[in-house]
Amino acid sequence: MTSADVAASTLLPAERDALSRALTLAATDGLVLGANPRVGCVLLDADGAVLAEGFHRGAGTPHAEAVALANARHALGADALRGATAVVTLEPCAHTGRTGPCAHALRDAGVARVVYAQGDPNPVAAGGAQVLREDGIDVVDASGLLDDDLAGRVRDINRVWSAAVALGRPYVTWKVAASLDGRTAAADGTSRWITSVAARRDVHRLRATVDTVLVGTGTLLADDPALTVRGVPAAQPLRAVMGLRDVPADARLAAPGPDGADAVHLRTRDPHQALATLWDHDRRHVLLEGGATLAAAFWRAGLVDEVVAYVAPVLLGAGPTAVADLGITTITGAARLDVVDVTLVAPDDDDAPGDTTVRLTLRPRKEQ
Amino acid sequence: MTSADVAASTLLPAERDALSRALTLAATDGLVLGANPRVGCVLLDADGAVLAEGFHRGAGTPHAEAVALANARHALGADALRGATAVVTLEPCAHTGRTGPCAHALRDAGVARVVYAQGDPNPVAAGGAQVLREDGIDVVDASGLLDDDLAGRVRDINRVWSAAVALGRPYVTWKVAASLDGRTAAADGTSRWITSVAARRDVHRLRATVDTVLVGTGTLLADDPALTVRGVPAAQPLRAVMGLRDVPADARLAAPGPDGADAVHLRTRDPHQALATLWDHDRRHVLLEGGATLAAAFWRAGLVDEVVAYVAPVLLGAGPTAVADLGITTITGAARLDVVDVTLVAPDDDDAPGDTTVRLTLRPRKEQ
Repeated sequence: MTSADVAASTLLPAERDALSRALTLAATDGLVLGANPRVGCVLLDADGAVLAEGFHRGAGTPHAEAVALANARHALGADALRGATAVVTLEPCAHTGRTGPCAHALRDAGVARVVYAQGDPNPVAAGGAQVLREDGIDVVDASGLLDDDLAGRVRDINRVWSAAVALGRPYVTWKVAASLDGRTAAADGTSRWITSVAARRDVHRLRATVDTVLVGTGTLLADDPALTVRGVPAAQPLRAVMGLRDVPADARLAAPGPDGADAVHLRTRDPHQALATLWDHDRRHVLLEGGATLAAAFWRAGLVDEVVAYVAPVLLGAGPTAVADLGITTITGAARLDVVDVTLVAPDDDDAPGDTTVRLTLRPRKEQ
Repeated sequence: MTSADVAASTLLPAERDALSRALTLAATDGLVLGANPRVGCVLLDADGAVLAEGFHRGAGTPHAEAVALANARHALGADALRGATAVVTLEPCAHTGRTGPCAHALRDAGVARVVYAQGDPNPVAAGGAQVLREDGIDVVDASGLLDDDLAGRVRDINRVWSAAVALGRPYVTWKVAASLDGRTAAADGTSRWITSVAARRDVHRLRATVDTVLVGTGTLLADDPALTVRGVPAAQPLRAVMGLRDVPADARLAAPGPDGADAVHLRTRDPHQALATLWDHDRRHVLLEGGATLAAAFWRAGLVDEVVAYVAPVLLGAGPTAVADLGITTITGAARLDVVDVTLVAPDDDDAPGDTTVRLTLRPRKEQ
């Protein structure tokens, strides 16, 4: 065993602390959206003292490593990084996207050792570790060396992005908002409002966590939704509509969004085709906002990864149902899900005091 | 103002403590069922020291005051109660039911002062305070003298019983157990099992808190339910079936229950009539167990006081709905409820790890 082998299987205490800090940095910015993962980077000198740090602020902006390198040069001069260690939450990229490859930037700065917590699951960007090793840099894949706390934080920080990259398609969250008896409108079709002011605000927060909101043309024609994020400081997700029918020129989705971006019309009824197109638009997390038929098509195609259900304390007894025919005929075929979170959305000042909404987050159960 | 007036508007510290203890005693026995409220009683000597205590163990057994008096006589002799104070959670009764009137028993024992926390809302039993006063006993209605903590405990201890007595009919709880999309069976009618083992066990605990479980003849003929309490140490509630169709001789409800008691067949479709009959059978809390049509009839008649909804993390997309037509046609007529409790029923060892059931307790919202 060479000394390089020893170093490659060891995480020094200062590096463990730096990784914890890098994860905190990566999680700092709730506004990171789009095709890019959350990443944090901390640069250490040979004694384990922190030289500089950086994190990624979203698609089109410099990667965390580039930010940390720039911060170090600005504060300490160009030579401060000779022999330094870079601790990064994600394997540095080896490809030239909207920014240059980080593997080269780290090498050119004189970094002698790179520790990363998660290999890049993106086949386009992966290979940074190999490039660095070929340049004679000590590279530590720390993914197997982490305690449970750090491992959990690494897993959580880019859960959706990692899943999307592994699947090779956007991660799909289906939002359902309905009465306690599973209805989205009364018998005459009226539906404003079933959910509380507080629940509708919570939906805006949910939208702010995805990069795409998608409705079917049926919902577009029936409800003319805006699909924008309001009341939450966030980038606007891409507004997308799917189906063969035309988008009326006077529809809200026909106008540019608050950020000036146009909505996308996916002229297909095939969920696979729709997701492939969105993937090509660098989309990694799609929120299905309606209607029931659209969601059922995704469900039947096995393309729903997560369900977020808002259950309002309302009974209707009749009217359209939130969940359309899923192709289930008998109880043994029931779609069973695992509850991963239950949150009570407390009523707003404008709601009745007892108007608590229950928000469930669920994932389709993997067969045992 | 006479000295008696002063005493009648004052709650001494020892009496406050005794009342807190009496409430604890009243709440002790989870098995108290049937027509009677939960009551606790603490007897104090003239210095405020505790002489004896007692609580009511359910219909047909001695009242709390009688138990406390007997305990005091047994431990201290017949004369120990001369000049004593009785602190009771509920106004002592003045009528002769299955036991003698407590007002007379307290007087005959030589009790000089009676403090009670809640006036008896039962017009048949009320009047004990007046009887005691006429006998020259200091009587304190402490209901307006309690701090928030005690007042809340007094309100909660006999919430359902007090409401039933005030309404002059049994309090009605509607149990709904359904998939996340509000269905009770799959498209082909199969329904075993939508809810988890843990949720079904929780339903037995719910049954153990009522004195009557009621189903319609439709549910009887379709499901042949047992409607017994299993796995919980409790008295069996009365099993009742409502509707015009006959109960088959081989139905489970046609056989005596575990306690040997027969089920009751209410041959009516009128919820008012059914509740009147159950009231005459000394029933104060009815659990509607099915089906949707029965519950809808009670709802339309304004006879549902509480809804307990078990939401299972299952999607069906088709099949019978848990809530039938409530006569609501437009969203402004939606039945809005206040959420008073949300409890997560964690999966049992026999359930999948993610099979968490959300149990909501709701009450129809009073118009503002």
